[in-house]
Amino acid sequence: MNNQRICAILAGGPEAGCLCLPVPEDAYIICADSGLHLAETLSLKPDLVLGDFDSLGAVPESLPHMTVPVEKDDTDTLLAARTALEKGFRDIRIYGAFGGRLDHTLANLQTLEFLRDAGADAVLIGTGNLAFLMNSGETKRIPQREGWSLSLFAWSQECTGVSASGVYYPLQNGTLTRAFPLGVSNRITADSAEITCGSGRLLVICSRL
Amino acid sequence: MNNQRICAILAGGPEAGCLCLPVPEDAYIICADSGLHLAETLSLKPDLVLGDFDSLGAVPESLPHMTVPVEKDDTDTLLAARTALEKGFRDIRIYGAFGGRLDHTLANLQTLEFLRDAGADAVLIGTGNLAFLMNSGETKRIPQREGWSLSLFAWSQECTGVSASGVYYPLQNGTLTRAFPLGVSNRITADSAEITCGSGRLLVICSRL
Repeated sequence: MNNQRICAILAGGPEAGCLCLPVPEDAYIICADSGLHLAETLSLKPDLVLGDFDSLGAVPESLPHMTVPVEKDDTDTLLAARTALEKGFRDIRIYGAFGGRLDHTLANLQTLEFLRDAGADAVLIGTGNLAFLMNSGETKRIPQREGWSLSLFAWSQECTGVSASGVYYPLQNGTLTRAFPLGVSNRITADSAEITCGSGRLLVICSRL
Repeated sequence: MNNQRICAILAGGPEAGCLCLPVPEDAYIICADSGLHLAETLSLKPDLVLGDFDSLGAVPESLPHMTVPVEKDDTDTLLAARTALEKGFRDIRIYGAFGGRLDHTLANLQTLEFLRDAGADAVLIGTGNLAFLMNSGETKRIPQREGWSLSLFAWSQECTGVSASGVYYPLQNGTLTRAFPLGVSNRITADSAEITCGSGRLLVICSRL
């Protein structure tokens, strides 16, 4: 059942190869267009390559692939996310989404929201950054990692009931707003941090210092 | 009157020197901590240097400066933005805010919102990216620039009445949502694009292709 299996989407960002978390061995791998380069760098065999292949320059005929028009509403990564949902995946990890243009980064963050709205768990994983969105009422544990920061942002206009423990600047039932980046550059001091989002949608970013 | 004068905030991002728009000659210049390096690279004389000076390593005694505690709620850039508002500036441009950690980029985008909420015009200017937020009912003209893309994102949950003309993919009275990055990688085909945001808050990003 795909809803029990991880789907790894390899995006076409310029971050080449050195990911902060590995692609799980048994993941179903979708390459979003030039994300195929990342698969090659990581010696991973794609289960599906999709896109308009404009950034790749050629259709990868020897691999399972799906060609879409160049002029479309979806970005390649959003298209891959939509395909993952259609195949029943609910644990979706997008690799190589950072390090490029700001518009691509924003589109990838919005793809997280698209996936969460559709009921999936989703995370963006890069070389020096990792990001995910938390829903109202969720609690997550984040393992400590030497040399990394932990930052919390209101992604919706406001997040209330935000708590963070196991961190240098703890927060208890706090409110974050989109106009006040209060939760930047915290760090995990215990084995793991526990983050709760009471209401709203909270953006969690771990960055390498 | 400061409300007629531009305030340039130089942030401490790793983008060194090669900005896509220059700092206006008569701007009031605030360096946010290690943003002082950017001032030095650009041969600009700061009117004020502020921060905890942890990233600089030393207090710049020979320059007008304001030292703040290392452990504070504001990021250095938000502190500079707050100071600019207190001094009466309403046209605030933040330089060198991109190219570093994703948490810093998000904090800088949220600083835009802080400034817009306070009634100021604000823009983030980097080497290969430029970003600003539009309020409900606003229309902006954006000059065409060879080799740059134009992307529109709902920064609030939804933006309605979004129009874009003078672009390859025009939009008339459209709706953007935060979960669907529809407006990515458009390009300006006329001398300038005209963008209107009917309701909500629209994030406009220009990125070098």
